[in-house]
Amino acid sequence: MNVNQKNQTTIWLDDSQDQICVIDQRYLPHEFVIRGLKNLSDVQTAISEMWVRGAPLIGITAVFGLYLNALKEEATFPSMIKAGEILKATRPTAINLAGAIDQTISEMIKYPEDGLTYRLLEKAIQMREYDIFICKSIGKYGLNLLSNIYEKKKFLYLDHPEKQIVNILTHCNAGWLGCVDYGTATSPIYLAHDSGIPVHVWVDETRPRNQGANLTAWELNQHGVPHTVIVDNTGGHLMQHGMVDICIVGTDRTTYTGDVANKIGTYLKALAAHDNQIPFYVALPETSIDWEMRDGIKEIPIEERSPDEVHYIYGKNTTQSNNPNTQNELDRVRVTPIGSAAKNYGFDVTPARLITGLITERGVCSANESGILSLYPEKINLVKKIASN
Amino acid sequence: MNVNQKNQTTIWLDDSQDQICVIDQRYLPHEFVIRGLKNLSDVQTAISEMWVRGAPLIGITAVFGLYLNALKEEATFPSMIKAGEILKATRPTAINLAGAIDQTISEMIKYPEDGLTYRLLEKAIQMREYDIFICKSIGKYGLNLLSNIYEKKKFLYLDHPEKQIVNILTHCNAGWLGCVDYGTATSPIYLAHDSGIPVHVWVDETRPRNQGANLTAWELNQHGVPHTVIVDNTGGHLMQHGMVDICIVGTDRTTYTGDVANKIGTYLKALAAHDNQIPFYVALPETSIDWEMRDGIKEIPIEERSPDEVHYIYGKNTTQSNNPNTQNELDRVRVTPIGSAAKNYGFDVTPARLITGLITERGVCSANESGILSLYPEKINLVKKIASN
Repeated sequence: MNVNQKNQTTIWLDDSQDQICVIDQRYLPHEFVIRGLKNLSDVQTAISEMWVRGAPLIGITAVFGLYLNALKEEATFPSMIKAGEILKATRPTAINLAGAIDQTISEMIKYPEDGLTYRLLEKAIQMREYDIFICKSIGKYGLNLLSNIYEKKKFLYLDHPEKQIVNILTHCNAGWLGCVDYGTATSPIYLAHDSGIPVHVWVDETRPRNQGANLTAWELNQHGVPHTVIVDNTGGHLMQHGMVDICIVGTDRTTYTGDVANKIGTYLKALAAHDNQIPFYVALPETSIDWEMRDGIKEIPIEERSPDEVHYIYGKNTTQSNNPNTQNELDRVRVTPIGSAAKNYGFDVTPARLITGLITERGVCSANESGILSLYPEKINLVKKIASN
Repeated sequence: MNVNQKNQTTIWLDDSQDQICVIDQRYLPHEFVIRGLKNLSDVQTAISEMWVRGAPLIGITAVFGLYLNALKEEATFPSMIKAGEILKATRPTAINLAGAIDQTISEMIKYPEDGLTYRLLEKAIQMREYDIFICKSIGKYGLNLLSNIYEKKKFLYLDHPEKQIVNILTHCNAGWLGCVDYGTATSPIYLAHDSGIPVHVWVDETRPRNQGANLTAWELNQHGVPHTVIVDNTGGHLMQHGMVDICIVGTDRTTYTGDVANKIGTYLKALAAHDNQIPFYVALPETSIDWEMRDGIKEIPIEERSPDEVHYIYGKNTTQSNNPNTQNELDRVRVTPIGSAAKNYGFDVTPARLITGLITERGVCSANESGILSLYPEKINLVKKIASN
């Protein structure tokens, strides 16, 4: 997607093939910083200090890390396996990270050590390309939904182009910054915008970490997609007053029965959409489906994060001050009294009954077992086996 | 309620009767500052710069302002009327403020000018006492609800006192800081706590202005009521997992049919409570009921506030810094990118169907016309007249 009027992805190989480049996302939305990663240690830092974030992007970055290790240190299996362990430890709870590393290593050791560096590079590039393909496919299927809404609104408000705009609400950041390009929930939006459908996005700020205000708003702003940031409390009011046509969110994990774990607060928006008969869609690649889980609310473990994310808010200091050192720095301010406790659940689970449909790389389906299996028939036996246990 | 282990109200007459004292609420929760207001101009500043806020407190402060004007300037009707106009202009949209001033003036001019200063003082003190009485009455009726929940939980978890705790969720600040003492939604909680019922309060931080994190948490903390601050996204997850026994919120305006306008985000919590069969109550004095409005969602005007409240967050700067001037100041940080728009609706309307009941100074009723009129039978004719128009 565009940044400063130029096409941009989150990770790419330098022309020299000597380093990979990533966006240091810690400074968004206030500064756009690109960093070169030259070796394993750089990659380790970039993942553990969250220069890069988002399950797909972390996995791809790590595999590029294995390549850089082979290139700069030792192109041997033992060195690759050791590097894999180091990389897995950077974000120990990120299942996707461990998965990408393990899968890469098991593929590599099927062949002789010879040519390992090249094969690691090829694997990393393939993963990067495949992620773009998956996101774009999700976008194409989601585009149909937006296009249908637009056709209806065009007909309904024939002489009022300003009323034909398709209003989409999204929560958190399921954008290209967490993938390579397009994103998941944002992909239909970018494709619709680029194809000339007038869209406008309501961006939930998404406390406590403000990924909506910090990342989604920045993405949309850079690509020129009209959007408005709102506090997380606002969506219900908008839906009551006909200001939202469709909700599209991402997911961290979806059961094969269609229950969706996503950033905390998603469930509240799904309730409001349901109460106001507004379609609520979840965009996801197959890798987010948990084929072994049946009941999302009972079974999906919900990460409890540091209460400090509730107590403090990070932002760019804009206080009027005579001291040049204090202006325009990234500061954190405390919003709660000393002595008050805080709790910080990272995710909630939206039950399938509140979800209109899932937008996947294979098409759109209803959020239930038969809908999901109709797109992924190769999983029927696996699911049967799980269900019978 | 208690502050620093001492009983405290939001406004009181100095022993000298020469000034009134208020809490400068702009510095909460980080500092507790008491200010003396000596004349009309001080009162004007205190209201317009929001040292005091909350409909009941503003009205009472203004009437004390009329008293100070008579005491210090001129004890005449023309001076009182002029002071009234000045005070009304401090918060032009606060209907309650204009109402308190108009009512006071119309009472005063029924009698000769003689003794005006004393009668203004008497009126202000009466209003202050009456507000405490109303809030305490709401508290007593709400206490029954909490007490019933506690009795059930005691029976259910006979040998597990830690599971007997009554968990209450509240949104924004409907606490004593906006009234004189007790508050509305918080009053049942304080009375329950003081009577030995183990309570715990989930405090929504309430973006964009963070009145939950700043004010409700501070109140509860000072009075020693166990509580936990959460971001506004969290309530649905808590309710899904049995961590909330009851919701109690305040209201800015409630129709005589039971639709409730309250701080933006209230509707989302009511939806979640309904979806999880958790009782959702609204605490309010009769003065919050709009006897002329039938359909809350269609009729109640929703204030749109400055987008800057979304773009920026105020708090106490705690960034590690070598510069002593930057530490521990009240700073504001920006959370959105430059170039992104923001919208800031102050309130939403929760339809009566989602509300279990209203807790008023006359008792608890269901959130509908017949429920409300059963407590306020003197309004039956007024409502009939409105409905027939």
